[in-house]
Amino acid sequence: MSNAQLTLDLVGCFVFALSGGLAAVRARLDVFGVVVVATVTAIGGGALRDVLAGSTPPNALRHWPYLAVSAAAAGIVFLWHPHVSRLRRPIVVLDAAGLGVFTVTGTRVALDAGLGPSGAVALGILTGIGGGILRDVLLREIPLVFRRGEIYALASAAGAVVVVVGSRIGGTVGWQIGGAVLVFVVRILAARRHWSAPMPRLRDH
Amino acid sequence: MSNAQLTLDLVGCFVFALSGGLAAVRARLDVFGVVVVATVTAIGGGALRDVLAGSTPPNALRHWPYLAVSAAAAGIVFLWHPHVSRLRRPIVVLDAAGLGVFTVTGTRVALDAGLGPSGAVALGILTGIGGGILRDVLLREIPLVFRRGEIYALASAAGAVVVVVGSRIGGTVGWQIGGAVLVFVVRILAARRHWSAPMPRLRDH
Amino acid sequence: MSNAQLTLDLVGCFVFALSGGLAAVRARLDVFGVVVVATVTAIGGGALRDVLAGSTPPNALRHWPYLAVSAAAAGIVFLWHPHVSRLRRPIVVLDAAGLGVFTVTGTRVALDAGLGPSGAVALGILTGIGGGILRDVLLREIPLVFRRGEIYALASAAGAVVVVVGSRIGGTVGWQIGGAVLVFVVRILAARRHWSAPMPRLRDH
Repeated sequence: MSNAQLTLDLVGCFVFALSGGLAAVRARLDVFGVVVVATVTAIGGGALRDVLAGSTPPNALRHWPYLAVSAAAAGIVFLWHPHVSRLRRPIVVLDAAGLGVFTVTGTRVALDAGLGPSGAVALGILTGIGGGILRDVLLREIPLVFRRGEIYALASAAGAVVVVVGSRIGGTVGWQIGGAVLVFVVRILAARRHWSAPMPRLRDH
Repeated sequence: MSNAQLTLDLVGCFVFALSGGLAAVRARLDVFGVVVVATVTAIGGGALRDVLAGSTPPNALRHWPYLAVSAAAAGIVFLWHPHVSRLRRPIVVLDAAGLGVFTVTGTRVALDAGLGPSGAVALGILTGIGGGILRDVLLREIPLVFRRGEIYALASAAGAVVVVVGSRIGGTVGWQIGGAVLVFVVRILAARRHWSAPMPRLRDH
Repeated sequence: MSNAQLTLDLVGCFVFALSGGLAAVRARLDVFGVVVVATVTAIGGGALRDVLAGSTPPNALRHWPYLAVSAAAAGIVFLWHPHVSRLRRPIVVLDAAGLGVFTVTGTRVALDAGLGPSGAVALGILTGIGGGILRDVLLREIPLVFRRGEIYALASAAGAVVVVVGSRIGGTVGWQIGGAVLVFVVRILAARRHWSAPMPRLRDH
């Protein structure tokens, strides 16, 4: 992993840990609960990716900065959560960056593990959204990403497709950067303009 | 995997995806939630099996028809769920077939991974019921298979025992077919005649 | 694994299965639900440890006594739960012993898999508390270990740190025993004296 990529990966972990920690504080967990939920939100998607790709122990357990960054974010939330929760706008921006980086690394790891296009896209999306799903399951919520109808996972899907197409054509790094940027742009536009995913019609129920 | 077995495996995926998709529609998820919950219900049991058996990446990520069949079922449920939810009887029948096939493949994979009888039975049952458990956890329900007192998991257990006994005696394919048929028959009879598993007595509480 | 260690591991499984079974009875599950929740509580932490460490199939599926002990505990709870639930004090003591043993084996497995100090401590804690977290997720509760503010996970963390420090210094078995005893003593003292972990302050919310 290049230094630039590791840095982005850690930025993603930090922001995801902030979101996990804030949700844990709202659910009135104790300090240990805040640290665990923040950490699982931060590294859960990548851990699922590594376990499913057969690359164990997961990257986030092998390199200490992942746990350190997650714990630091948890500590910040624990001590100053009223201030952190007011930073809604920068958190959305950084979260979109994290989603882009996680999606691209997940797709790339899946391709390296020999998966085909559909498996690689599925694992890329799971890497991007898996941490948030685990957060919501631990806090006894139906995962937000399934409910709010926002364009979040679809942004991730678009980026994963770009990485897969790029790997077929032969380029790699450029397409990966493009995929991450696409996720970021789609996600930010969707959040700004309140684009939403379709819901099932329920009239016959 | 033989062609007949792959076909049955995909039929199981399709029906499990229908049940997952219907539950997701009832929980008012958006289109992405319906697709993910349907897919996890369909391939979750097999993915748990492969991860626990150390056979990664999971089969369902390595072969695209699994994801394609799950996504197709999710699309059908999303568009026509009032019609699909009326097909209660054929869904129970196909679900019983899926339970039988998943139980047998799970038990066989466990034996191939070197597990003994009790481990193989446990993994066979988990393969059969794991997708439904993940579906219920994602939708914030206590898993149906633990609650409704129906003979569902016990049907799976019976089939897993048959496969293990068969592997000890030396035959394999015939015993596997027998195991799957046993699961199917026990499950259908239990559903028709409302056989139920015992509940703990609560008088002293 | 030495005989003494295996014995302690099985004692831990037995007590964790009792706690899982009691929770399942309270949630009004049927006999199958009681057996599965008890078993997952007993072997779930170790299974997570083995999957994350890349040591599959998990130990508890490879050696039948783990499943046998868990099923026996589930049966005892199913038949005599009013009596079992009255044994609060011995269960707290045995549970503290189980937490100590599971923490130490988890940390040791993590070190053997090549993880560094922070990864090993994280995996040691997860081995100790993972079964209880899975129990609560299956029963649709926010994990008790995050909520009650008791010193439970912190006891586990202290023991994991001792094992890691010991492995750095060069001794192993003595430090492992010391780590398990430390978990036990801290946990018992915390339970007796109602020591609690800090909660986030919520005045600004």
